[in-house]
Amino acid sequence: MQDYAIGIDIGGTTTKFGIVDKNGTIINQSRIPTNEFEDINQFIEEIYMATLPMINEIGGIENIVGIGIGAPNGNYYKGTIEYAPNLIWKGVIPLAKLVKEKFGVKCILTNDANAAAMGEYIYGCAKGVDHFITITLGTGVGSGIFIDGKIVYGHDGFAGELGHTIVLPDGRLHWGTGAKGSLEAYASATGMRLTALELLDEFKGNTMLEQFEVKDIDSKIIFDCAQQGDELCKRVFEETGMILGLALANFVMFSSPKLIVLFGGPTKAGNLILKPTKQSMEEHLLPIFQNKVDVKISELPESDAAILGASSLVC
Amino acid sequence: MQDYAIGIDIGGTTTKFGIVDKNGTIINQSRIPTNEFEDINQFIEEIYMATLPMINEIGGIENIVGIGIGAPNGNYYKGTIEYAPNLIWKGVIPLAKLVKEKFGVKCILTNDANAAAMGEYIYGCAKGVDHFITITLGTGVGSGIFIDGKIVYGHDGFAGELGHTIVLPDGRLHWGTGAKGSLEAYASATGMRLTALELLDEFKGNTMLEQFEVKDIDSKIIFDCAQQGDELCKRVFEETGMILGLALANFVMFSSPKLIVLFGGPTKAGNLILKPTKQSMEEHLLPIFQNKVDVKISELPESDAAILGASSLVC
Repeated sequence: MQDYAIGIDIGGTTTKFGIVDKNGTIINQSRIPTNEFEDINQFIEEIYMATLPMINEIGGIENIVGIGIGAPNGNYYKGTIEYAPNLIWKGVIPLAKLVKEKFGVKCILTNDANAAAMGEYIYGCAKGVDHFITITLGTGVGSGIFIDGKIVYGHDGFAGELGHTIVLPDGRLHWGTGAKGSLEAYASATGMRLTALELLDEFKGNTMLEQFEVKDIDSKIIFDCAQQGDELCKRVFEETGMILGLALANFVMFSSPKLIVLFGGPTKAGNLILKPTKQSMEEHLLPIFQNKVDVKISELPESDAAILGASSLVC
Repeated sequence: MQDYAIGIDIGGTTTKFGIVDKNGTIINQSRIPTNEFEDINQFIEEIYMATLPMINEIGGIENIVGIGIGAPNGNYYKGTIEYAPNLIWKGVIPLAKLVKEKFGVKCILTNDANAAAMGEYIYGCAKGVDHFITITLGTGVGSGIFIDGKIVYGHDGFAGELGHTIVLPDGRLHWGTGAKGSLEAYASATGMRLTALELLDEFKGNTMLEQFEVKDIDSKIIFDCAQQGDELCKRVFEETGMILGLALANFVMFSSPKLIVLFGGPTKAGNLILKPTKQSMEEHLLPIFQNKVDVKISELPESDAAILGASSLVC
């Protein structure tokens, strides 16, 4: 009886993994630092050694249906991680093949945002919704697109890089890609921090952010101060929501989803980010799309969602 | 032997229809003015009377597999035309049902740009390409999106309104929708005319367009003058291509197609529009998408493509 799956979420800093049962309960999990293992085989060995006791606990590898992996720049068709700027392994890494060989069960890999979308579809608020988009807001902005109940991979497996779509042409320079005005340059936690810093002059002598060292200001501090009524920080959420909503309107006019799920750190701000986002989206939509699309914040606990999403790839 | 299909293309001005054989040859066709028939049943009757001799010529209705219709604001799921601003029939028109009742064969309806995309997939340069996007440039800008060999309809049948995506926020006011900075406001024939008019001051005394009355300047005249080396008109194509290419880059980062097919009047300009479009698209793409996507101008004759595309819905 293959009642369990393994989910592995490879992040820039931490790799989380765990064993998930058929009900979507993570019955055991652990984590290792991602970039301490220069050799990919050493990294896989570390995960193998950490999961071995968990696997034995549920009666052995024969009870595992497979291993799902979410990873930055993960390619579903090829099972590879390709040129991931934030990972220590360079070039093309045939991770799914290596993991399959090590564990002796099937392995499916996709990019981290697609895994998050799969998690929403199987266990989260997109359950039963065949047309939806997940936007993950974190250090970057990722996305997973569902059409007709399937993840959109495109001709080469790289579809769904919505964080890199240009939303304000000739706008803010992206620190990593060099693009000007991409969604990620504004709606990521990194982008929100930059928006706050740009507003410091205008709000001189009139914002709680001045109590912090510039290097310490992050999206969490911006949220805390906004909650206490700080006008600069409230403005950051308004401007971020305006730009995110504009981008969402364009996505809706592409694939006409029923639902958009927002996920990640900045969404903890709840209505502070949700309200201006929805308003801007509706304003930029053609009438035939207005008041038809739900925009929700993910209800999956962040620490679990990545493992659940990855494991659901093999369910 | 159902070796034939009927294709009907409903345009704002003219409705074209014809009988298509299995090889994609239109063996007989005709046209009527669209908006002279206030009653939709009268419109269908007119098409019926015009096609009857064609149907008899190929041995009767039993040789017809079905009728495909492309129409503005056509909804594939419901077989309806809904709130089409340029048609005389207001509200929701259950056209597929009415046509099926009149002719006694199955009828499938979709929007005109989706029908054009289907035509490219079955008979045109997207043959065998499962991931592609067709952009139709005309009075407006339409689009048909293929993913995994199927048209993307979204949850409600209205997906693929790429002409209405916002490409320059707070940009040019769209004459019909009221949106600011949508692709259609720039890349349609109407938009190109406006770009030319905006440049008249800058090129005062230095452009062939001054020989024309402002009301007469259209995308055809702009093309003719550009071919004769007029700097203003060349600039119109450069600016249009820059904006269209930026929009295409965003579409590519959504669904990662292998091919983009451009169709319609302004594409007759060939490299004048294609070159700046490709250049701008590549500039705005994330590196993993660069130099992977073909952008081609449709090779289907414009007069036939609409009928072929519509008929291919039932093939």
